[in-house]
Amino acid sequence: MRDPVGREMRWWGWGDPDHPPALPEHALPFLREEVGMAERARPPVDLADVRLPESALPEAVRDALAGAAGIVRDDRAARVLHAAGKGYPDLVRQREGDCAQAPDAVVLPGDHAEVRAALAACAEAGVAVVPFGGGTSVVGGVEPLRGEFEAVVSLDLSRLDRLVAIDETSQIAVLEAGVRGPDAEAMLRAHGFTLGHFPQSFEYASLGGYVATRSAGQASTGYGRIDELVLGLRCAAPAGDVDVRALPASAAGPKLRELIIGSEGTLGVITQAAFRVRPAPHEHRYEGWFFRDFAEGVAAFRALEQQEAAPDVARLSDEEETRLSLALAGGEGVKARAGGAYLRLRGYEGGCVAIFGWEGEEDEVARRAGRTAAVARRAGGLSLGRSPGEAWARGRYEGPYLRDDLLARGVMAETLETATRWSSLLDLHAAVSGALREALGARGTPPLVMCHVSHLYPTGASLYFTFLARQQEGAELEQWEAAKRAASEAIVAAGATITHHHAIGRDHLPWMRDEVGDTGLQALHAVKRELDPAGIMNPGKLLPAG
Amino acid sequence: MRDPVGREMRWWGWGDPDHPPALPEHALPFLREEVGMAERARPPVDLADVRLPESALPEAVRDALAGAAGIVRDDRAARVLHAAGKGYPDLVRQREGDCAQAPDAVVLPGDHAEVRAALAACAEAGVAVVPFGGGTSVVGGVEPLRGEFEAVVSLDLSRLDRLVAIDETSQIAVLEAGVRGPDAEAMLRAHGFTLGHFPQSFEYASLGGYVATRSAGQASTGYGRIDELVLGLRCAAPAGDVDVRALPASAAGPKLRELIIGSEGTLGVITQAAFRVRPAPHEHRYEGWFFRDFAEGVAAFRALEQQEAAPDVARLSDEEETRLSLALAGGEGVKARAGGAYLRLRGYEGGCVAIFGWEGEEDEVARRAGRTAAVARRAGGLSLGRSPGEAWARGRYEGPYLRDDLLARGVMAETLETATRWSSLLDLHAAVSGALREALGARGTPPLVMCHVSHLYPTGASLYFTFLARQQEGAELEQWEAAKRAASEAIVAAGATITHHHAIGRDHLPWMRDEVGDTGLQALHAVKRELDPAGIMNPGKLLPAG
Repeated sequence: MRDPVGREMRWWGWGDPDHPPALPEHALPFLREEVGMAERARPPVDLADVRLPESALPEAVRDALAGAAGIVRDDRAARVLHAAGKGYPDLVRQREGDCAQAPDAVVLPGDHAEVRAALAACAEAGVAVVPFGGGTSVVGGVEPLRGEFEAVVSLDLSRLDRLVAIDETSQIAVLEAGVRGPDAEAMLRAHGFTLGHFPQSFEYASLGGYVATRSAGQASTGYGRIDELVLGLRCAAPAGDVDVRALPASAAGPKLRELIIGSEGTLGVITQAAFRVRPAPHEHRYEGWFFRDFAEGVAAFRALEQQEAAPDVARLSDEEETRLSLALAGGEGVKARAGGAYLRLRGYEGGCVAIFGWEGEEDEVARRAGRTAAVARRAGGLSLGRSPGEAWARGRYEGPYLRDDLLARGVMAETLETATRWSSLLDLHAAVSGALREALGARGTPPLVMCHVSHLYPTGASLYFTFLARQQEGAELEQWEAAKRAASEAIVAAGATITHHHAIGRDHLPWMRDEVGDTGLQALHAVKRELDPAGIMNPGKLLPAG
Repeated sequence: MRDPVGREMRWWGWGDPDHPPALPEHALPFLREEVGMAERARPPVDLADVRLPESALPEAVRDALAGAAGIVRDDRAARVLHAAGKGYPDLVRQREGDCAQAPDAVVLPGDHAEVRAALAACAEAGVAVVPFGGGTSVVGGVEPLRGEFEAVVSLDLSRLDRLVAIDETSQIAVLEAGVRGPDAEAMLRAHGFTLGHFPQSFEYASLGGYVATRSAGQASTGYGRIDELVLGLRCAAPAGDVDVRALPASAAGPKLRELIIGSEGTLGVITQAAFRVRPAPHEHRYEGWFFRDFAEGVAAFRALEQQEAAPDVARLSDEEETRLSLALAGGEGVKARAGGAYLRLRGYEGGCVAIFGWEGEEDEVARRAGRTAAVARRAGGLSLGRSPGEAWARGRYEGPYLRDDLLARGVMAETLETATRWSSLLDLHAAVSGALREALGARGTPPLVMCHVSHLYPTGASLYFTFLARQQEGAELEQWEAAKRAASEAIVAAGATITHHHAIGRDHLPWMRDEVGDTGLQALHAVKRELDPAGIMNPGKLLPAG
C-alpha cells in the first residue's frame, strides 16, 4: 500500500531526510566573513518534543470526514508535517518545535467526488479547509489557519495522482492535482511528452499547487508559465463544480480559468487540470556566460527576448550572487573559468554570470543556441562554455537543502521575487537590495543581498532576490518580518508586483490590495462569497478583509 | 472640429458610403446557380423613412448627461447609426427601416472622468448604458437593449482617441479605448511600432472593442490574440475603477485583467489599455498554397504550428470556400494558377487553397518562409507563389462590403466561428456544415456553406464558417434564426466553443451557460452585481439570467 501522505519529507525542513549536506566546507570562511554564523549548531528539535495541541475536531465530524473521504489521520507525524509549508518563518517555528498551528486532522480524499464530499462535510460542520498539494509553499499558503472556525483540516491531495487522459494529436494531457512534478514527467515521458515545468520545488510540488499559485519554473522563459500551459481545469468549490473545458481559445466572455488559476485554495479545490504538453526533448544544452556588470547583462537579456533569440532557461546573477556562486562552487563549475585569469584578462572581473539553457531536438537546439550566442556576444557577453551550465543544472534543485544547512548554522536564508517592465528593472533592483540592506543593517545583522533575473518577457522580467544574514537568536521572526516588510514596501513603491511566482498566501496578504485595488478586491470577494458561502476555504490567505 | 460620432459609416450596412461595389459581375452566374437571387434589387430604405420612436430620455437626465459628458446627441442620424451593430439580423432590420431599438440618446464623453460621470448619472436615473466603440459587433453586442429600464443611451467612446504613453524600452503602449484600428497603427508607426492586430473589422473597430470582445485578427497566429497583447487596462465600473497595471507577469491571485477582457461592457467601460507592441515590420510577404483536400491541409497546418513553423497569417479554405474564391477571383489572383491545368496536372484539382503571410525584417521573413515551405511541402502542400497571397491581402477587409452587395440582391450572407482541439477539428467541420445545410435546406433555401481554418494554436484551431442562401423574403430573421440555432447546437454538441473571436453579445447568449456551466455563471453574476449594482451596464448581453 502506498503511503497516503505522499513521499517522505523532512517535517522541519526541505526534502529527502537522507539527503547529504549541501553546504560545502570550503564555503564556510566566506560565509563567516560575509554574514557571520551562530557559535553553536542549531539543530531542529526531535519530533517527540514538538509542541502539538490536542485535536479540536469533534469525533462526529471526524467520522463524517472518514465516511466522505475514506482516510483521515490525526497522528503526530501527519499533523506536524501538515502544520506548515517551507517558508522561512515556517521553518523557524518547525525547527524549534512550535506546532500550535497544526491542523486538527489530515483528510486524504481519493478522487474528485471524495473532495466534494469532504467539502460538504466541512461546510456543514463549520470546519476550515486548507488544500495541501506538495506542501512546498514558501509564502504560508498551506498554513492551517482556522479563521473564525474552531477546527481546521488539511486536505491532502496526494491520492489524486493519476494521468486521466492524453490527446497526443492535440498535445493535451489531463492530470490530477496531487501528481508531483517528477511523477508527471515520468507519466508524460511514457507517451513521448513533457510539461516543461521545473520550479525549484519540482521534486515535491504538485500540479494542483502549480496551478493554484500561478507557478513559474526555471525553463518558463521557453515553455511559458503554468498559466500559459493550463487549458482547462476542474475545481470543486463548496457551491458546486467549476469545469473549464480544455479549448485552444475562446471569446466567450471573461476567462473563468483565470479566476481559478492563482486562487490558492480560497475558492475551492482544483482536482485536475488539462495541460498543453510538448514532445519530450532529446537534447538539453546549458552554458555559462559572463557580462561586465548587471546593467550590461540586463540589456543583453532584453535584446535576446525582444529579438526572439532567448534560450529556454535564462538566468542572470548580479555581482553579489556571482560572488557567492564562485565561493560555493570552489574548484568546479563556473569557478573553473570564471574565477581565474581568464575573466581578468578580458576585463570581466567582478562581473555577472549568466546561465543559458536550450531544450529540444538536436538540430533545433544547435540553431537556437547559435542565434542566442550571436545576440549575446553583440551585447557584450562572453561565453564560458558548457561546464558552468552543467554545474548549474546538477544543482538546480539544491537551494532548499542549502537553506536547511544554513539555518543549522544560525544563518537566515530567504528569497523573494517580483517582476516589472524592462525600463524599471535596474531601479527596482537597487531599491529592493537597498531596502533589505538597510532593514537588516539597522538590526545589527548586515546581510548579503543577491539577485538574479530569472524569467524573461518581451515587456519585462522577474527579479529573484536571496538574502543571508546572521540570525537574531530569539528574535528570528521579528528580524524576518522587518526585512520582508522593507522589501515589500520597496516593491510596491516601485510599482512592481509583490510576487512573480511564489503567490500571495499568508506572507504577501498585506500588499494584495496594492496589487488589485479596492474595486478589484471587492470583485474577488464577491466571487469568494458566491463559490464559498460559508468561508471555509483557506481562511487568512490571498484576500485581505474587504 | 472633428465629427464627434467618429468617421462616417453607412447606417444600413458596412463602411465607407462611397465604397464601390465589391461583388464582381462575373460572379453573378455562379451565385444564381448555387443559391439563387431575388428577382428585384432590395435596396435599403431612405434615412428619412426609418421608423424611429420618440426618445424616452427625460429632459432632466439629458441635461445631467450633458453636464457630465459634454456632448449628448439625439438627432436622427446619431440615433439610427447607434441603433445596431453589423450582424446579419442588424442589417436586415436597418435596411428595411426598423429602428425600434434605437438608443434614446448618444452620449459622447471625452475622457475617463467624463465616462465615470456619465455612468453615475445613468445609475442615479436608472438608465441603461450600452458602450459603443466602432459599432462593428456582429453578435448584437451594441444593440441598445434597455432591459428593465425605461431609457437606454449609447455611450460612444470615439472621443477617447489618444495615445496616452509609450515605453519604447519595454515595448508597451497605452491607448484610449476609442482609438480605431488604422489610427492606432498610425500613432504607433510614428514611434516605429505596430500592435499587429488586424481583424476584418480593422478599418472601423476600436481598441476598446477589441479588448471587450476578446478579438482575434487575421495575423493573430503570429502576433497573438488581443488577450495576449493586453497587459493592463482601466475600466470605469459603476462601483468604481478597476485599474490593472501593465506588468509582464504576476502570481498575485486570480487575474482581474481576464475578468474585464471579454466583459463586453456588462461590468463597466474600458477606457484605456496598455498593449504589448512590436517593432513595425519592414517586410510583408503573402503566398498562396494548395492542398489536395481539407484533411490534408488541416494536418499540414497542425504540423506547422506544433513544429513552430507557422506563418503569422495562416488560412486554409475548405473545398467549397476555394470554389467560391475561384469564382469571385475571375481571372486574377488565385485563379491565375489555381483555376487551370496546373492544378489538374498535379492532382490538386478540387482541393483547398491556403494563404500564408509573414511579417518582420527581411532576412527573418525569408528564413521563416523557408521553414514554413519545407514543412508544408512535406505535408503535401503545393506553392502557388505570391500572386494569390497578394490578392488576398488587397481584399482582406472587403468581406463586409460584399455582404452588403449580396443583401441588395436578396442573398443572405452570414458568418460564424468556433474553435476546438486538433483531434476534433474535422468532425466539427462536418457537423456544423451539415447542420447549416440541413436547416436551410429544410426551408427551401439550400445554402452554400464554406469554411476556413483561421487561427492556429499548438492544441487546436478555429473554424470560420460563411454561408450564403437566398433570402426568404418577409421571413429573413426566422430563416437566420433557424440556421444560427442549428449551427450553435452542433457546436455545443461537439464540445467546441460557441465563439472564437466574435464574442457572446446578444446572439450567443442562449449558449453561454454551456460555455461556463451553472457555477461559473453564478460566479460571473456575482462579479456583475458587485461592479454594477444597479444592473445598468449593457443589459441582455453576455450573461443569461442566473
